[in-house]
Amino acid sequence: MTTAARPTPASPASAGQRGPLDHERRAQIVEAADQHFRHYGYHKTTVADLAKAIGLSTAYIYKFFSSKQAIGEAICARCLGEITTQLRAIMAEPLSAGERLRRVYPTLARAGADLFFEERRLHDIVVTAVTENWHAGTTYEEELRDMVRALVVAGREAGEFERETPLDEVCLAIEETLWPFAHPLMLEEKLDMLDAATAAVGGLVLRSLRP
Amino acid sequence: MTTAARPTPASPASAGQRGPLDHERRAQIVEAADQHFRHYGYHKTTVADLAKAIGLSTAYIYKFFSSKQAIGEAICARCLGEITTQLRAIMAEPLSAGERLRRVYPTLARAGADLFFEERRLHDIVVTAVTENWHAGTTYEEELRDMVRALVVAGREAGEFERETPLDEVCLAIEETLWPFAHPLMLEEKLDMLDAATAAVGGLVLRSLRP
Repeated sequence: MTTAARPTPASPASAGQRGPLDHERRAQIVEAADQHFRHYGYHKTTVADLAKAIGLSTAYIYKFFSSKQAIGEAICARCLGEITTQLRAIMAEPLSAGERLRRVYPTLARAGADLFFEERRLHDIVVTAVTENWHAGTTYEEELRDMVRALVVAGREAGEFERETPLDEVCLAIEETLWPFAHPLMLEEKLDMLDAATAAVGGLVLRSLRP
Repeated sequence: MTTAARPTPASPASAGQRGPLDHERRAQIVEAADQHFRHYGYHKTTVADLAKAIGLSTAYIYKFFSSKQAIGEAICARCLGEITTQLRAIMAEPLSAGERLRRVYPTLARAGADLFFEERRLHDIVVTAVTENWHAGTTYEEELRDMVRALVVAGREAGEFERETPLDEVCLAIEETLWPFAHPLMLEEKLDMLDAATAAVGGLVLRSLRP
C-alpha cells in the first residue's frame, strides 16, 4: 500500500448489520472498482478517485470496505472464485479421474489468462496481490488442493492410478505442477504456449500415475 | 524504474576500450552494489547514494553502467550464474540421468532460497527483476532448458526412460515442473517445505519417465 492512507475500518457493529441489500451494494462496488482499476490502474487510483468515478461518496464506500486493499482483495476473491467455478464443473463431469485431472490444466490456465490479463497486459492489482501476499489466494489454494486430492483418491479407488507412492506425496507433487498455470506471473511468461504447456504437463502427470 | 532518472549510457567508444582491469572494477561495483541494495533496498537507493556508500564518484559508476537497472541486471545475472554453476556440477556427476535429474530439484530450490532471500525476506531487486521482466533471466532459462534436454536424451539413450512420448513434449513438461523451484515468488511461498516439495516433484517426474 503506497498510494493511499489507510482509514479506520468500519465498526464491527455496522458490519454485523449487513443484509442481502448490503451484499448487493458491496458486489456493485467491487464490479465498478474492478472496471475502474483495470482502466486507470490500481496503484494510481485512490478511494476518493474511485468514489467520484462510480458516483458514490467516499464515506459510503468506507461503509463497505475498510481500505483500498480491502476492495482489491474482494476483486481478487471474485476473480479466483470464477476460476474455481470452472474447475468444479470439471470435477462434476462423468469422466475418469485421469481425464478430469488432465482437463484441470488447460482450464486453470485459460481461466487465469482471461481473468488476470487485459489485452495481454497483467492487471496491476494482480501483481500487487501476488507480490504483497494478499490473503485472497488462501481459500483458492485450499480449494485447488482439495480437488487434487479428490481426483487422486478417486483414481486410486478405480484402479486407474498406482497406489505405491504415499498419497500425500503424490498430491503435493501434483499441486506443484499446477502452480505454473495458477500463478499470474508464471502464466504471463507463457501466454503464447498455454495449450502446448498444459498438454505436456497433464500428460507427464498422467504417465506418472500409471499403476 | 520509478526512483531514479536514467542518464545517458556510456559511449560505445569507452565500452570498446574495456580491458581485464575494467572487468574487475565492474565486478567490484556489482559486489558492493549487491551488498548495499540488500541492506538499504534497491528501490530506495539512487546511483548517487550508491556511489557515496561505496566511495566512488557517480560519474565513475556511469563509466561502467548506463543506469541503476543495468547494475541490477548485473547483480541478477551473477546470482543466476551461481545457481547454474551448481546445476552444472550435478550434470557432471557420474550418476544415471534419472538420479541427476532428481538432484536438480533440491539444488535449484536451495540455491535460489540462499540467493534470493535475506533472512527469509525476498530481496526487492529480485521482485523488481521478476515483475518488470528483466532480461537477466533469459540466458538462465535457456541453460535450464538445455540441461533438461541433455538429461532426457541421456536417459533415453541409456534405456532408463520411456521413448514413446515426443522428446519436445517431455522436455517442455519437465521444464514447467522446475519453475515452482526456479521462480523467486513461487519459492517464497514454500521456503518451509522445500525438501518435501522437491522430493515429491522429482519423484513424480521420475515415475513419469519409466519405460
